[in-house]
Amino acid sequence: MRISFANDYSEGCLPEILENLSKTNFEQIGGYGLDLYSKSAIEKIGQLLGAGPDQVDVHFTAGGTQANLIVISHVLKPFAGVLSASEGHIATHESAAIEATGHKVIMLNADPYTGKLDAPTLATFLAEYWANPESEHSPFPGMIYFSNATEYGTHYSAQEISAIRDVADKYDIPIFIDGARLGTALAAEPEKLRFNQLIDLVDVFTIGGTKNGALSGEAIVFTNRKENYADRFRWTLKQRGGMLAKGRLLGIQFDTLFTDNLYFRAAQHANQMADLLRAGLKQRNVKFWTETKTNQLFILITPELKQLLLQEFIFLDWLIPSKQQLSELGIEESDQNYHVVRLVTSWATQSEWVDQFLDRWDDFANL
Amino acid sequence: MRISFANDYSEGCLPEILENLSKTNFEQIGGYGLDLYSKSAIEKIGQLLGAGPDQVDVHFTAGGTQANLIVISHVLKPFAGVLSASEGHIATHESAAIEATGHKVIMLNADPYTGKLDAPTLATFLAEYWANPESEHSPFPGMIYFSNATEYGTHYSAQEISAIRDVADKYDIPIFIDGARLGTALAAEPEKLRFNQLIDLVDVFTIGGTKNGALSGEAIVFTNRKENYADRFRWTLKQRGGMLAKGRLLGIQFDTLFTDNLYFRAAQHANQMADLLRAGLKQRNVKFWTETKTNQLFILITPELKQLLLQEFIFLDWLIPSKQQLSELGIEESDQNYHVVRLVTSWATQSEWVDQFLDRWDDFANL
Amino acid sequence: MRISFANDYSEGCLPEILENLSKTNFEQIGGYGLDLYSKSAIEKIGQLLGAGPDQVDVHFTAGGTQANLIVISHVLKPFAGVLSASEGHIATHESAAIEATGHKVIMLNADPYTGKLDAPTLATFLAEYWANPESEHSPFPGMIYFSNATEYGTHYSAQEISAIRDVADKYDIPIFIDGARLGTALAAEPEKLRFNQLIDLVDVFTIGGTKNGALSGEAIVFTNRKENYADRFRWTLKQRGGMLAKGRLLGIQFDTLFTDNLYFRAAQHANQMADLLRAGLKQRNVKFWTETKTNQLFILITPELKQLLLQEFIFLDWLIPSKQQLSELGIEESDQNYHVVRLVTSWATQSEWVDQFLDRWDDFANL
Amino acid sequence: MRISFANDYSEGCLPEILENLSKTNFEQIGGYGLDLYSKSAIEKIGQLLGAGPDQVDVHFTAGGTQANLIVISHVLKPFAGVLSASEGHIATHESAAIEATGHKVIMLNADPYTGKLDAPTLATFLAEYWANPESEHSPFPGMIYFSNATEYGTHYSAQEISAIRDVADKYDIPIFIDGARLGTALAAEPEKLRFNQLIDLVDVFTIGGTKNGALSGEAIVFTNRKENYADRFRWTLKQRGGMLAKGRLLGIQFDTLFTDNLYFRAAQHANQMADLLRAGLKQRNVKFWTETKTNQLFILITPELKQLLLQEFIFLDWLIPSKQQLSELGIEESDQNYHVVRLVTSWATQSEWVDQFLDRWDDFANL
Repeated sequence: MRISFANDYSEGCLPEILENLSKTNFEQIGGYGLDLYSKSAIEKIGQLLGAGPDQVDVHFTAGGTQANLIVISHVLKPFAGVLSASEGHIATHESAAIEATGHKVIMLNADPYTGKLDAPTLATFLAEYWANPESEHSPFPGMIYFSNATEYGTHYSAQEISAIRDVADKYDIPIFIDGARLGTALAAEPEKLRFNQLIDLVDVFTIGGTKNGALSGEAIVFTNRKENYADRFRWTLKQRGGMLAKGRLLGIQFDTLFTDNLYFRAAQHANQMADLLRAGLKQRNVKFWTETKTNQLFILITPELKQLLLQEFIFLDWLIPSKQQLSELGIEESDQNYHVVRLVTSWATQSEWVDQFLDRWDDFANL
Repeated sequence: MRISFANDYSEGCLPEILENLSKTNFEQIGGYGLDLYSKSAIEKIGQLLGAGPDQVDVHFTAGGTQANLIVISHVLKPFAGVLSASEGHIATHESAAIEATGHKVIMLNADPYTGKLDAPTLATFLAEYWANPESEHSPFPGMIYFSNATEYGTHYSAQEISAIRDVADKYDIPIFIDGARLGTALAAEPEKLRFNQLIDLVDVFTIGGTKNGALSGEAIVFTNRKENYADRFRWTLKQRGGMLAKGRLLGIQFDTLFTDNLYFRAAQHANQMADLLRAGLKQRNVKFWTETKTNQLFILITPELKQLLLQEFIFLDWLIPSKQQLSELGIEESDQNYHVVRLVTSWATQSEWVDQFLDRWDDFANL
Repeated sequence: MRISFANDYSEGCLPEILENLSKTNFEQIGGYGLDLYSKSAIEKIGQLLGAGPDQVDVHFTAGGTQANLIVISHVLKPFAGVLSASEGHIATHESAAIEATGHKVIMLNADPYTGKLDAPTLATFLAEYWANPESEHSPFPGMIYFSNATEYGTHYSAQEISAIRDVADKYDIPIFIDGARLGTALAAEPEKLRFNQLIDLVDVFTIGGTKNGALSGEAIVFTNRKENYADRFRWTLKQRGGMLAKGRLLGIQFDTLFTDNLYFRAAQHANQMADLLRAGLKQRNVKFWTETKTNQLFILITPELKQLLLQEFIFLDWLIPSKQQLSELGIEESDQNYHVVRLVTSWATQSEWVDQFLDRWDDFANL
Repeated sequence: MRISFANDYSEGCLPEILENLSKTNFEQIGGYGLDLYSKSAIEKIGQLLGAGPDQVDVHFTAGGTQANLIVISHVLKPFAGVLSASEGHIATHESAAIEATGHKVIMLNADPYTGKLDAPTLATFLAEYWANPESEHSPFPGMIYFSNATEYGTHYSAQEISAIRDVADKYDIPIFIDGARLGTALAAEPEKLRFNQLIDLVDVFTIGGTKNGALSGEAIVFTNRKENYADRFRWTLKQRGGMLAKGRLLGIQFDTLFTDNLYFRAAQHANQMADLLRAGLKQRNVKFWTETKTNQLFILITPELKQLLLQEFIFLDWLIPSKQQLSELGIEESDQNYHVVRLVTSWATQSEWVDQFLDRWDDFANL
């Protein structure tokens, strides 16, 4: 059996979740997200955010694409589109889920190595859009979307988000953070972005369960900063198929995740395993495609070594860099051929697996 | 703690499911419904249907509204609508989920007591539609939808579905059965409709997990009778948010449900509990709003007795019948005032609960 | 050549329109509805409504179905549906155009003879909807739609609309009047509803050109009573294909129609021709299916007479009444068989045609 | 009054059209595109294409954005998107009209100077898409769209389209040509693409009226090459608001345009005027941003000269080239600052206007 570093959703779930599902299994409780466990989870999330009683609205749904499409189609005006990095998840990996709700994903260039959308890029786009006297002929920018952590394993600081907030405020546009991997983003540099800062920085964000130890489920948090974007959200949640009859499945999971900081501890573990792996690879002078501090590592590897390691481990191809890209990374033409692969750790990764990976790296590299 | 006859999704899930989720929890397996448990479940469902290797396509998704909207939006031509009884689930209880995908639910009158759509009603509608020389001005009937069991607890025989099939074939329209409660429909009169008959009778149907002992999940079965309606279904499943990263959650559940006939045994148990309750109520001369053989009972009860029973049991108001309706049921004006309430049993109902309900009925009725 | 009473869009357009199109043909002017003729038309409509400078927003689009779908999809919240009589144009004769934009037409029973939606029906529906603790499972009522004149040729008084307004205000729902035949509605009983009263009674309405002497085109008027429903409307107009590059085609037409009251005079003429026809038929003891004062007449006629008249005139079958309906109209079973047909007059109808129709009626009736 | 070279829709329409609208004005004819003039226009277009009786399906609608959104939403499978150059009209200038119907515009890089999509770019994209084992996570490429002439005034030869056809056939994807300016594209190099070749090369195309002398209107031609993409098109046409009650407005216009080659003669005139202007500018050593043979010219001009000319003529800014772009065009840094502007001629352009423009160019250039 090969050990997998393919992604952070290869195992089932944190044992505490299964335990609580079992313990509560025969309790007869209400449906559709109005049960006591959902309510308890909502309360805990609100407390961690330091929110007053009506300051946040929290809902749960089963998956990440679903959360994105429900939030975006609920918040956007009918004619508006959502701004995203051209490599954002909604732009590339959700099979046009946003467009299927009638809204365009308006793509902006992000930094090609970090995948991050930045405030100046947004500011320039919006200034040009509104300077155009025939702007109604072009797709209306009605929301800013980005992921934290990104698809590239990078993360945002409060300062970076705040700069985006300033642009958004100038044009009165809501910000939505796709937090499918919010846990590892927050655990990467806790001093640079704290969970409770999100309440002031963005209008709506998700807290990903699936990639951080849940069986399924994402929490959707509206911060009600200014406009009440959460208004009548249960209608959209139902209409788009996101409301489960057995809401307990999501409620119990998030109640468990937000008890004793389990959510954050699971993410810390994932990041610690990534740190171990990163340190080991750096010791071996491995080059990184992009510098990350979360649970995703993107490294350069020779095709030969890749093939050998794939016999015992699972991980994914990311891309084959061009000569120009290699040169930007300080690798000369005379050097070997390289591929970029992605290694992902998770709440379930064992440190022995990392050791084993590094050992076999040494074995194969020295062949 | 009151005992609930409110619905069939008040508890968690069949213990076998939790057991298998636990047993497989740390296995590292693939995502998005391509894992071995999903494949095993698909194979088992195919075998029970007596299907050849490519004869059926089976997919899983988390909820019933989701299954309905994904199937319907995938199968319908862009301009077409779906025919449903005006009291069908998609017409009334899914917050316009079908319309949100751009398609109209075209409502036909069903029998007011059984909630069933019948072949002559469909035949008349379609004949009139196509006789209209300006039919393109009216919503295009592109699919036939009905639930089995229905919202009213009634069920269809193979003969009834076959008659609908004839009409559908005449106009080349696919049939979709919403099987959120398919288990109890099949268990009601097994001789009148067998599971494997569906493969010849309809184009696509769902097998509801949520209301028959699963934590969540519906199987979607395309029968490929004629047109390949399943073509590229994974794209729609992804696009509409119905594809879970941890597909194992659904795969393991359906693999469990279709091992040793657990799915059918769970439904039989629910029906047996309903039989017990029905028999007990009939002994007490209780009048039924509609005659059912599944796990939903609709009975006439005085408001006073209802209030007393609600102190110890949970069940839902259904409607307040008009005088004309009462008279149709053989109840004279001089008689008491009546409400109609719904009692639902499930895989988790205990026979003691039924006994207790009937005992308290006697106690309160004799006050 | 048969004379047509089939509808009010059989001819081209009022000669004044062709004249102005010719006169301005080689002027080079701006596109997309921002030309001087569109602006002049907007100003004239605003003046007739007695509106202050920013009090109304007026836009033009080519057709009635287009106007309806653009307005409704722009105004409704993403999850909401629109309330309509079950015989409303958007419910039956626009091929599910509203649903194609993602919104349900929620059908309410209207008076079967007048086709009119009334305040008590709306009040009852909305009270029940909001009394339901699980209302989020049912389609959200987010707008009230009705036509004036209706599909049945009936019209609304200010008093009737005001009663609907009260219900709408109670639930904070906008009202939209489909004015495809607004001209004849206003001309029917001018003392009961004046054009400028609409500004206070409804949130948005259309002024139909196509059925009142234009080649094509409807004006859309937002009254900005309370919420600014017109905000960013040009984006929706463009997005839904309703903004013509040569906006002059619509601008010149509406500028012509609202010069010297041409729009109202055209409608008066249509109604006067209908009055002539109605009076003539009443003299002949013809029974009317519904009493109208606009340019649509619905009369009972024997199939034999109908066939004879159809040799020389064009008019449309409406329905074949049931015995019960005939009896409600005071026609006994022993009497002859009847069909209901529709006769429509227009701005182009000549009084000689009416005379001719009545003459031939006499000729054939006496055969 | 300034003379306009701003676009090809500044005037009303070809006088023959107004004449025929007047001549037929009081004829009473049927609605919704089923009138004799629409039928005659359809027949003439079929004849020019050399089509057998059922080989093409032709429909008319009022505008270009409307035609695009109706065709694309009708032809695409529900989950699919449409491939377009990233500068294609549907990608940039229709306010997300395609996305509003639920479909993504999948953007491919086109040649930055010609704006043309080419076969190798399509082949590479499609090969990579289908090589991806998780292709269902990425937007499905279900149609190829391009304009002829393009937004950049360039045009396609039969040979170029044929190469795209080969790629499309390999993946079984229909091709749709947006012919808003088809006339000038065909008139540019008649020997390289003949009108009747389209019947074999593409699945559906439009024939733009608005930009070639009509008051409004586009013809939509399905070629039924292989699949019957036109099936039930009248339903979509109605549903999307594209079917006019007075279909005569479009029928009479296209009947006129396709009588005595008026459509082609109008386009030829536009191109001849562009040729005059182009030749005059070349004589004056003006540099062209891109080489065109149609009625759109893109030239480099100093800001000073531009301002002077704008006092007497109307034309539009296109872009401000970067230094790198200028250098690619052979203009050195030391040279003057340049803007790119667009000059458009049309059926209505008079040769005197061109002379006047060139005269004033000389006057101002010599200041």
